[in-house]
Amino acid sequence: MNVKRNEVRTSLTPLKIHRDCLKVLNQQKLPNEIEWIACSNESEVADSIRKMHVRGAPAIGIAAAYGYYLGIWQRVAAGKKISLKTAEGIKEKLNKSRPTAVNLFWATEQMHQLMTRLCTENQDTMTILLKLFEKACSLHTDDADRCLKMSVHAAHWVRQNFPDKKLRILTHCNAGALATGGIGTALGVIRVLASEGLVEMVYADETRPWLQGSRLTAWELKKDKIPVTIQTDSTAAVLMQKGMIDFIVVGADRIASNLDTANKIGTYSLAILAGFHGIPFLVIAPRSTFDLSLHDGSGIPIEERNPNEVLMLSDQRIAAQVTAINYSFDVTPAELITELFHEDGMEKRKRG
Amino acid sequence: MNVKRNEVRTSLTPLKIHRDCLKVLNQQKLPNEIEWIACSNESEVADSIRKMHVRGAPAIGIAAAYGYYLGIWQRVAAGKKISLKTAEGIKEKLNKSRPTAVNLFWATEQMHQLMTRLCTENQDTMTILLKLFEKACSLHTDDADRCLKMSVHAAHWVRQNFPDKKLRILTHCNAGALATGGIGTALGVIRVLASEGLVEMVYADETRPWLQGSRLTAWELKKDKIPVTIQTDSTAAVLMQKGMIDFIVVGADRIASNLDTANKIGTYSLAILAGFHGIPFLVIAPRSTFDLSLHDGSGIPIEERNPNEVLMLSDQRIAAQVTAINYSFDVTPAELITELFHEDGMEKRKRG
Repeated sequence: MNVKRNEVRTSLTPLKIHRDCLKVLNQQKLPNEIEWIACSNESEVADSIRKMHVRGAPAIGIAAAYGYYLGIWQRVAAGKKISLKTAEGIKEKLNKSRPTAVNLFWATEQMHQLMTRLCTENQDTMTILLKLFEKACSLHTDDADRCLKMSVHAAHWVRQNFPDKKLRILTHCNAGALATGGIGTALGVIRVLASEGLVEMVYADETRPWLQGSRLTAWELKKDKIPVTIQTDSTAAVLMQKGMIDFIVVGADRIASNLDTANKIGTYSLAILAGFHGIPFLVIAPRSTFDLSLHDGSGIPIEERNPNEVLMLSDQRIAAQVTAINYSFDVTPAELITELFHEDGMEKRKRG
Repeated sequence: MNVKRNEVRTSLTPLKIHRDCLKVLNQQKLPNEIEWIACSNESEVADSIRKMHVRGAPAIGIAAAYGYYLGIWQRVAAGKKISLKTAEGIKEKLNKSRPTAVNLFWATEQMHQLMTRLCTENQDTMTILLKLFEKACSLHTDDADRCLKMSVHAAHWVRQNFPDKKLRILTHCNAGALATGGIGTALGVIRVLASEGLVEMVYADETRPWLQGSRLTAWELKKDKIPVTIQTDSTAAVLMQKGMIDFIVVGADRIASNLDTANKIGTYSLAILAGFHGIPFLVIAPRSTFDLSLHDGSGIPIEERNPNEVLMLSDQRIAAQVTAINYSFDVTPAELITELFHEDGMEKRKRG
């Protein structure tokens, strides 16, 4: 590890924490407008997750942890009695916000295990509130640490595989500061490499239909002065054909035991194209993204969102009056992934 | 051939012909608005081609042929003397409108060869005008004939390869009535199959950045009561992964001698994905799309259009303030194409 924490940073954060509310940067309106939405209970946090004001698997988990705390806080503030049953309801409400990213369920489970212990110990209300707040904060700062650690691991691999080379990197969606509690996952490794002067260009897929790439990734990298170019999703193959891409790196929303990986729609396509062109395809995500209850990717629930995300843009109709398919994620089989990194290093694929 | 001409038709046309002007259906505004733009000389036709009011390789060729006629017509109407040199200038102006689709150059060359002959024969002005008008009209109606013929050839292949099956077909961009003088090329074969009740669903890639799929193909098929669903371009791979696609069919903008094929950006990507999933990848285009002066696809000029087509939508900024790559076409190597059809049947690939 030859990168110190304070060498690689970003001023961007998708969440601002207060004792009585969570402020969520409305990513639907970026980059044209900076709007912070205040959520003061679990329902409002769940709503912000559902509407994708906050998105990105790790950030969703962090927001949900705060949402759990706020659910308890609000009831205490209103003079209501809190119980494990109340807490269970709060957890369920948050868990129903989005189905694919497993970090959400992991984070609410972390909070709920603590709550269960505190209730069993008959702790007083103030202690419970304080401990839950501390726990949510620690999940947040832990994620920042994990982002840095996994990014350093992945950057090490990249340096070894591309010695003395200015890198041309393709990424999809936004797996950056806006999607995590720290420097990001895919954009984390890009930030580490950029801090060493090794990034020639980041090619960001625009990522239809929500345009996380052209709206968020491009904005985020430009803010941090990392060179970035946008292309439509189907241009990615041509960049590979022309020899303009050294490697591809993406984040993940859920990883099964066999390392099949759910991520933003378009990832599966990219992984096939990378294989065809002999370009390394890297996945980088915290351990909280792993779902060891699933043998393979076939068990990962894939969210289908409103077809209007494809047919409309900012309340304006951009397509004919027909139906649209709008899968939010796809599953990339493990064999198409060159390497997978998390905070503890490189996850070895079970080959064969 | 078991389809009669009058059995497969469409009421859609991208061009309306008058003695003194060409009316172009403004495809930039479809499907929200039906606007016809009147062009009365070669400059206005070239401008309409450049701005993509009319697009699609065969339709561009037809529009350019009328543009050639109108250039001569306008000068005659203004009492000017016409010469082969004037005609040469008209041809050049039209040829500069867009670089990739070879049908444009083919069509203006057809007109210019006739003009050269008429001038050499010292024909009078009225005869020249009449003959040029007739020639442009015949290129138009010939294209309709070619569309039907190639569609019937391709449909025959499909029936043989998918006997007694309701078909799920994926297409990209718009290779339909809006892109040709007839029923279309890719949408031509779909229309022939639909007339036999064989089409279960057409999956239309939305085709960023210009959205020819979701704006034009979906609109065109819905008008002709053929079942159609839109998906984002990077969803295509998932439909293949799920076994939802029987075959893919696209048009072409220029085909080299070795059958490397330039078509709308995203075609190359689809061809690789089709190969990965073992799905037939069909190309269908008139012989006027072949450029035998080129050995392979490396010689095909690929148009790069304004990055704002990616960064803006209807004058609204949809991306961060960074640069974008906007290749309008890509080149699919011949070996990724399962079969290629034109008006005379199936073109045999030179294998090995």
